[in-house]
Formats: sequence, C-alpha cells, structure tokens
Amino acid sequence: MTTEALYGAVDLGGSHIGLALGSVDVEAGEYRVVACRNLEGGGYDGWEPMLDRIAEGLLELVRGVGQNPAAVGVGCPGWVDLEGGVTRFLPNLPSQWRDVPVADLLGARLEAPVYLLNDVRAATLGEFRFGAGRGTSTMALFALGTGIGGGVVVDGRLRLGPLGSAGELGHQIVDPTGPLCGCGNRGCLEAVASGPAIAAAGVRLLRSGQAPALFDLTGGDAGQVSAETMGEAATAGDEAVTKELERIAGLVGIAAANIVVALHPELIVLGGGVAGLGDLLFDRVRRTIAERVRVFPTDDVRVEPAALGTDAGLAGVLVWAASSA
Amino acid sequence: MTTEALYGAVDLGGSHIGLALGSVDVEAGEYRVVACRNLEGGGYDGWEPMLDRIAEGLLELVRGVGQNPAAVGVGCPGWVDLEGGVTRFLPNLPSQWRDVPVADLLGARLEAPVYLLNDVRAATLGEFRFGAGRGTSTMALFALGTGIGGGVVVDGRLRLGPLGSAGELGHQIVDPTGPLCGCGNRGCLEAVASGPAIAAAGVRLLRSGQAPALFDLTGGDAGQVSAETMGEAATAGDEAVTKELERIAGLVGIAAANIVVALHPELIVLGGGVAGLGDLLFDRVRRTIAERVRVFPTDDVRVEPAALGTDAGLAGVLVWAASSA
Repeated sequence: MTTEALYGAVDLGGSHIGLALGSVDVEAGEYRVVACRNLEGGGYDGWEPMLDRIAEGLLELVRGVGQNPAAVGVGCPGWVDLEGGVTRFLPNLPSQWRDVPVADLLGARLEAPVYLLNDVRAATLGEFRFGAGRGTSTMALFALGTGIGGGVVVDGRLRLGPLGSAGELGHQIVDPTGPLCGCGNRGCLEAVASGPAIAAAGVRLLRSGQAPALFDLTGGDAGQVSAETMGEAATAGDEAVTKELERIAGLVGIAAANIVVALHPELIVLGGGVAGLGDLLFDRVRRTIAERVRVFPTDDVRVEPAALGTDAGLAGVLVWAASSA
Repeated sequence: MTTEALYGAVDLGGSHIGLALGSVDVEAGEYRVVACRNLEGGGYDGWEPMLDRIAEGLLELVRGVGQNPAAVGVGCPGWVDLEGGVTRFLPNLPSQWRDVPVADLLGARLEAPVYLLNDVRAATLGEFRFGAGRGTSTMALFALGTGIGGGVVVDGRLRLGPLGSAGELGHQIVDPTGPLCGCGNRGCLEAVASGPAIAAAGVRLLRSGQAPALFDLTGGDAGQVSAETMGEAATAGDEAVTKELERIAGLVGIAAANIVVALHPELIVLGGGVAGLGDLLFDRVRRTIAERVRVFPTDDVRVEPAALGTDAGLAGVLVWAASSA
C-alpha cells in the first residue's frame, strides 16, 4: 500500500491565518484535510515573526501527522511573483510583505517546495476543482465581501498572469464616473457593490427616512447597517431597500454580463458575505445576463453560489501545491 | 522532398467572399497564400447558390495549383456550431444561413474536412499567430468598424465557447444607461464607439456649429461624416472633434481596462477602420488603462495596431484548418 501524498496549505489573512495538511483527488473532485489549525493574524511586529509562526505551526501539524508534505501552497492577499515565490505587495497585511522570498524561506524550514498564489485565485481554484465549479471547464468567480475579488478559469486552467493578478473582477469599471474605489480608480464594481457600498446605500435610506424596517432592525444606528441587515430589511418589507439592493445586484449583473461576452463561461460563481443576499442577488444577476447579453444565446450560462465557503482558499492552495509540485 | 500541406480558406462576408489556398508555419509565425480569389457577396438568392459558388471557386483554385487542400477553414460572420460545423445565425448575410451544415456540404464537394470559425475570432487567431500577437501568449483584439467585434487568446489558446462566440468584446457594457445597440442591449461599446457612433458624434458637432474644419472637409454634408473625416477634422484643428474623439477613445480604453483586470493580457490589439485614428486612439487607450487599472501594475500590457489588415481573417482560418485537421 502506498501512502497518499500530503500537501501543506497556508491561507494568509489579515485577521487570521489558516494552516492545513491534506490530500487531493482531482479526478474525483475531492480533497481531505487531515490536520488543521488557525493562527491569529496581526503581524504588526513585521513579516519575519509571522512567517516564523507559520513555519512552526505547520511543523507542529507535520509532527502530529507523522508525514512530510510533498509541497506547500500559500494563499496571499495581493500580488506575488509566481515564478520566484516572492510576495510583491499584500496591501491588507500590516507590514505589506514587500518582496519577501516566502517560497525560499518557508521551503527551507519545511524541506518542501512552496508555491504562492493570490488568495481569491486560490478560492477560485478550490471552487473549480471541489466546489460549485466541479465538472465545468470555463468559469468566473466573484468574491463579494468588504472588497470584491475574483478569478477566472478558462478552458480548464486558472488564468493568472505574471503576478497572479488576472481575475480581479471587482475592478471592472461598471460606472465610469462612479465613486472612488479603494484601488484609486472610479466606478469599479467594488466601489458600487461591495459590503461597504451596500451599507452606504442603506445608511442613506436610514437617514432619509425611507427604510422603516431597517430602522427597526438597527435601532436607527448607522453602525448596524450592513449587507446582512439590508437583506433582512428587504425581507421585512422595506421597498426602498429592496429597490436599492436590486440596483446594486444589477451592477454585479453588468460585471457578470461583461465576463459572459468576453469568455462565454459555463458558470458564474458568486461567493463572499454579500452572496448571503440569496435569491434577490442571484435572480437579478441571472436576469441581467439574460437581458443584457444579446449578441449570442446564454441559456447555458449558470449563476450559482459558492459551495465551499471560507474553506475554498485552503482547498485551492492544496490543489495548487499538488499540481505545481 | 515532401510536398508542403495546403489548406483552404474562406472568408464569408456580406459584400465579398475571400477564397484562398495557402500553407502555414506556426513555429516561424508565417503563412503563405499560393492562390486566392474574391467573389462578390450578396447571396439574396439564398445560401445554396452561394455555397455552390464558394465550392466552385475553391475547386478552380485547387485545379490551378494542382494540389488538394488537407483541410478547409471557413470564417463566418456570426454564431456557428463549432463541433458540428453548422452555421447557426449569420445576421449580416441576407439569408442568415440558419442551421446550414456547411462542413458536410462543402466537405463533400472538396473532399476535405471543413472547419468553421467566427470571422473576428479568425482574425484574432491570424493576428495572434502571424501578426501583432506573434510571440505573445495572452491577448485580446478589438475590431473597431461598423460594428465592434473581438477575440481573446488565453494562455496560447483562442477562447471560443460552444458557439465560437466568446470574445464579443464590442458588447461589453461601458455605459449601463447608454444608447441602444444593434444587439438589443444598451450602452455596449459598439453602441458608443463604433464607426456609426463616431459619425453620430460628428454630425451633432457639425449641426451645432462646433466643428468648422469638419464642415469644410464634408461640405457640411452629414453623409460625409465618418471616423475618417472626424480624424482629419481633429488634425485640421477642430477642438470639439478632438475632445469627442478622446471621449470615445476613452470608452474603448474602459473596455480594454476591463479586459486587462480580468485577464492581464500581454497585448491589446486594435484593428478595423476606426483604428485608423492612430495616436489619438492608441494614446488615449493606453492612458486609460494606466489610469484606470490600479489594482495591479500594467506596465507590461502593450496596446498595438493590428498588423495584417483585412488579411487577418483568411490567415486565421488557414491556421484554424491546419490545427483542426
């Protein structure tokens, strides 16, 4: 009997860091985590002690399991030099990890090759191999949260580009004169349809007295307005909230429609906290694609929720490690 | 000495039909036409006599050259069933060629396998293998003319989808509430930046007395206003014309920027008559990408003119035939 190969996975986030050891079976569309652990994020003391804690944490998992990983994948929130295994710019981490040779440093500690990948591209790969995208060949994922990330798989292959930055679907321009985005541009999907953009629309309705149910739900506290409370207010009967959410979902639909004309994917996956809006979001996105893409038939394009939740990133770097090794 | 394989090429257009026999050398990035002929388009008598003339024309070329083609590629202006070699809908041809089994019918006449491909995807493949895109791996082409077509090559492979319809970059929505497009949608790039859209902007300036040079160039005749005369008027000093062309070029830039964030291509190719605007167009598109794509560095994304002109489509179906056979 041969031992199944194990791979290491690191999901490097601002508030927490996920570590795992697991195996993958791409043919079967399955992965299995055999050991995992969460570390606190932070890292205000710089990247070196953080990398040290990651290495220690993984080594502890390895000792527990009694088997070395054949390779390790690291999901990073930003740009990475894929070829060299060097982080370039991770804007949401305190020390930004500029030009850190993570693959070399971590590889030396773990005695295994280490492969970096952007975290949302990792989640896209996870959903493609093991989740909503299982069995498809071309798909796009929108991760709708505080920011909007994304990823595209074309003809069975995750599209990356030299920095692993292809697939930044949240920075498609859907409103050329629209509000300022965190990236510095105007009118990106992220600027008009992320969690904060939805909350902003809700705060306006709250303050202008157009959303009685939202007022009740939040006690009139703008700090309590979120995509979640907006969804609840819509369900509770706030018509203005419903209309605003439909308008915003329509903008997600426009970004999705633009991907459909460019790539004619079989599947659009919507994930992240904002996808919790459910039918209100999904129906509108489906309708927008049907109404807006007229240049060819799109009956074969499905719009589905992500299936793996927050595990998608870890699952993705596991298979990334396995396929890179 | 082995004889070099010859392939047949058909570029099926509304006003003319191009026929050719040629060879391809993908490694060297070269193709060679050994015989060619143009037929008049039209076909108001239906698709059957047209297909007959195409078969006769190709057979005449074959007799002249004395060598049968190993395969034949046909570029079609619309949707095709790639797998079955059946046209689905060619909206710009009089009889629309609905569900015509071109591969079977033409293949029987020519005694060679026949492969269909959308004409702008064919031009994209031609530019990728032999023109502006030689040596690149991921690129997008915008064919800016009376309509706006396009194509994308991802990681060395032309993206098609089941109807060969992926890459319809002219139907990206760049202005959600914008003017009606020929496809039935609103605010497509084609509706705001095609030849007719540019002419419309010019007619407004002409009629409202804002474009003295354009007035001189056209003798005040709206029928003479085109992308070409607009370009000339800008050069001749019409400031309002320059500003309108820059605004429109900026919309092409937005569509290009959206492709850059989605795919991070090495190259954006601009072709078609509107690309004759030259620097005014290209500089603005480059600047728009630089200013609008902030989520990752894009210094490595080039924006270049198409290199093969109207031959791109024939060159593309030649290599399509060669690689499909």
